[in-house]
Amino acid sequence: MTFVNAGTLGAEPGKRDELVAHLTRRSPALADVGCLAYEVGVNDDEPDTVFVVEIWTDAAAHRASLELPDVQASIAAARPLLSGEFGGFRFDAVGSPLRD
Amino acid sequence: MTFVNAGTLGAEPGKRDELVAHLTRRSPALADVGCLAYEVGVNDDEPDTVFVVEIWTDAAAHRASLELPDVQASIAAARPLLSGEFGGFRFDAVGSPLRD
Repeated sequence: MTFVNAGTLGAEPGKRDELVAHLTRRSPALADVGCLAYEVGVNDDEPDTVFVVEIWTDAAAHRASLELPDVQASIAAARPLLSGEFGGFRFDAVGSPLRD
Repeated sequence: MTFVNAGTLGAEPGKRDELVAHLTRRSPALADVGCLAYEVGVNDDEPDTVFVVEIWTDAAAHRASLELPDVQASIAAARPLLSGEFGGFRFDAVGSPLRD
């Protein structure tokens, strides 16, 4: 069953869009290790926050992604843009109305 | 661009799994109106909470789903199982590393 990460990332003031650019850079390797969806968004009511929802084939696929050179480079590049405020939740799915 | 709803639903004590059963009942009509993913999960660290992540083609698709008879019946059936505690966030996606 899938593993889901739904998170909010606080950005340093004025750095939100730069953070979005890092998170949305095309990365085919993610799908190769089992990333089914990776949506990045913003909401002008919270102008210093980036919202992310990721769906993975399982938690092991998510862990494997963190070892990818592309992902490690992206994390390093994004770090100075982060305020240190994180939120959200993660879970192992138990089902979906879209499948049996 | 997609619309994402990432939410937590508080369940009345002991009613979590019944709430999960409602939320995961097979509903092909959701895909018909533009539901791309709908993952439901639990986490035993928070035994009275159900976690949901939904990805829709756009916010209009999500709104349209709320008018479906299936969905309205499911909401009515689930209501007595809910504690009234809700959390999470929703956003319009601005991009994804999985697509250009």
